[in-house]
Amino acid sequence: MENTNLQDYSHKRFNILTGEWVLVSPHRAKRPWQGQNEEISTEKRPEHDESCYLCARNTRISGDVNPDYKDVFVFTNDFAALQKDSPTFNVNDGLFQAKSETGICKVICFSPDHSKSLAEMEVEDIAKVVKAWQEEYTELGNNDMINYVQIFENKGAVMGCSNPHPHGQIWSQSTLPNEVDKKDKHQKAYFDKNNSSLLGDYLQQELKAKERIIFENEDFVVLIPFWAVWPFESMIAPKKVKKNILELSDVEAKNYAEAISVITKAYDKLFNTSFPYSSGIHQAPTNGEANEHWHFHMSFYPPLLRSATVKKFMVGYEMFGSPQRDITAEIAAKRLKDLV
Amino acid sequence: MENTNLQDYSHKRFNILTGEWVLVSPHRAKRPWQGQNEEISTEKRPEHDESCYLCARNTRISGDVNPDYKDVFVFTNDFAALQKDSPTFNVNDGLFQAKSETGICKVICFSPDHSKSLAEMEVEDIAKVVKAWQEEYTELGNNDMINYVQIFENKGAVMGCSNPHPHGQIWSQSTLPNEVDKKDKHQKAYFDKNNSSLLGDYLQQELKAKERIIFENEDFVVLIPFWAVWPFESMIAPKKVKKNILELSDVEAKNYAEAISVITKAYDKLFNTSFPYSSGIHQAPTNGEANEHWHFHMSFYPPLLRSATVKKFMVGYEMFGSPQRDITAEIAAKRLKDLV
Ligand SMILES: O=P(O)(O)O[C@H]1O[C@H](CO)[C@@H](O)[C@H](O)[C@H]1O
Ligand SMILES: O=P(O)(O)O[C@H]1O[C@H](CO)[C@@H](O)[C@H](O)[C@H]1O
Repeated sequence: MENTNLQDYSHKRFNILTGEWVLVSPHRAKRPWQGQNEEISTEKRPEHDESCYLCARNTRISGDVNPDYKDVFVFTNDFAALQKDSPTFNVNDGLFQAKSETGICKVICFSPDHSKSLAEMEVEDIAKVVKAWQEEYTELGNNDMINYVQIFENKGAVMGCSNPHPHGQIWSQSTLPNEVDKKDKHQKAYFDKNNSSLLGDYLQQELKAKERIIFENEDFVVLIPFWAVWPFESMIAPKKVKKNILELSDVEAKNYAEAISVITKAYDKLFNTSFPYSSGIHQAPTNGEANEHWHFHMSFYPPLLRSATVKKFMVGYEMFGSPQRDITAEIAAKRLKDLV
Repeated sequence: MENTNLQDYSHKRFNILTGEWVLVSPHRAKRPWQGQNEEISTEKRPEHDESCYLCARNTRISGDVNPDYKDVFVFTNDFAALQKDSPTFNVNDGLFQAKSETGICKVICFSPDHSKSLAEMEVEDIAKVVKAWQEEYTELGNNDMINYVQIFENKGAVMGCSNPHPHGQIWSQSTLPNEVDKKDKHQKAYFDKNNSSLLGDYLQQELKAKERIIFENEDFVVLIPFWAVWPFESMIAPKKVKKNILELSDVEAKNYAEAISVITKAYDKLFNTSFPYSSGIHQAPTNGEANEHWHFHMSFYPPLLRSATVKKFMVGYEMFGSPQRDITAEIAAKRLKDLV
């Protein structure tokens, strides 16, 4: 990068999708750490665990028995944060403002094998997960009540995951959540002005700059966004503009699965541990509009900073001010690229 | 509350200060927890610890020796995220947007007693901390380079605090961080429209509703905001509109200290543990403008949810969608009020 200032001095970078800033303090990585260390689970998990409510053939707390599934298994969350038949109401009482919110929450088991994570699965098995996401996006999106479908995964105890069985979640709802709303507005404003995709144009610029690219295949690129918040935050996006995952051909879906495989494997190698993260797909709302301004992308937000046990805490200043990071996006990209 | 729907069904509430929403799922508190448990430190700390770089008379990593301080001690952070003499630069390269950011970061030891927290300090000693905040806000605010002063505390290992010695931090900088910018805009819009303070009017409505008030004295109120995100998030605010902490008389400052004492003591009682949190004061920028639209307030963001060891994780859905909470603000307020 021509501007070495970005590697040496405090600065803030602009997130073009959310309109928010991240504070970058490159010199700060040197400070000593006497704070909390995370525990690493080195326990080898069995392929089937009798006490796991996500394993095949086991009984869940609801009394339902899981089928003897062979690849992916999707069911409605037994403790859903959003419910489909709650009443509609509005609180419009001066400065107290509230609205009912309905939705459907699902759990998606990535594999019957209790011991595996996405990083350890074959690309063709990850492709089956992508296919299930497509089916859910279609089915939920076709529901009149649902205007947005959030697909995500919490991996690892440090990310609040309450069960190590490989699984993700899908929360779908009637309105756009905050983060999606921000990205919707910024992509729309750019599209209306330039008749071109904001993220699509950004990716072209990244592919030329090459500095933050971790991996690419014919259809997908994996990179550290210029404005990344988490130490090793990354983004997977299709090179051609696609508003949602339904626009992927079978070959493209396979290349998407490969990109997921590559980045999760690189993560595991980085600190020689099963790398915790939350990941999520941001894509076009299912609100019946054209949404031509949308370019779908998947992000990984992993908390580890220096080792398998020292994470970045987004606390005090980050909660009250802005997110803050110590290593630059360029350094993080270089480290991950070397592991691909 | 007339509207019992808010206690029974999923809904979202609007944060009037930031313009963002929180998803509330009251029925969800019942789900089982098999996830990560936090460690509680039950170790009794000495009043002076030779190895603590914040204790009086000890040598810090910079080589500086702490004075033999008797109440509050403030110094410039040895690993400051913001520095005052870094160069000014601008990256304006297509969709890569960055700007240099300068500032001053300080550490403020609340007491020489290594074993104490704010909850365990006398009100008159907390009043000395308030006085030090006022002095720092004045001094930093008078610096031409500084346009915003963020005062905060990270308490507890689970909040990324790297040293148990009672202390907070002050990060001051040339531009407004994201969260402050949002609150600035929303307070300004309301003030311009109504010629009245947004938060001031909100507090009047809360004082009438009484449902979310934990404590009040003559000058201050402690409450759970209608839109609280963290399970036991609370806010301390002056009843009269004050744009910053400099507008407090000595008596008011003492009543502020009492409010801090009351809420931190209630927190410690809640789960019978030294309650972790990040707290921060949002107040008028020091940018030379009138800032009449500002009403200062201090917020506490504590992560614990069900016990001393089970916290709320703001992960997957929360990172990609919106913050989500399981217990309502009204229930949280009632539980804390009972402990005052
Ligand atoms: O400054 P400390 O206490 O070393 O560090 C702590 O507070 C900072 C400001 O909120 C955060 O950026 C760090 O992640 C956290 O560990
Ligand atoms: O749904 P789970 O896995 O029980 O719970 C986890 O993910 C949810 C969605 O991100 C969060 O609200 C919870 O705090 C977290 O522990």
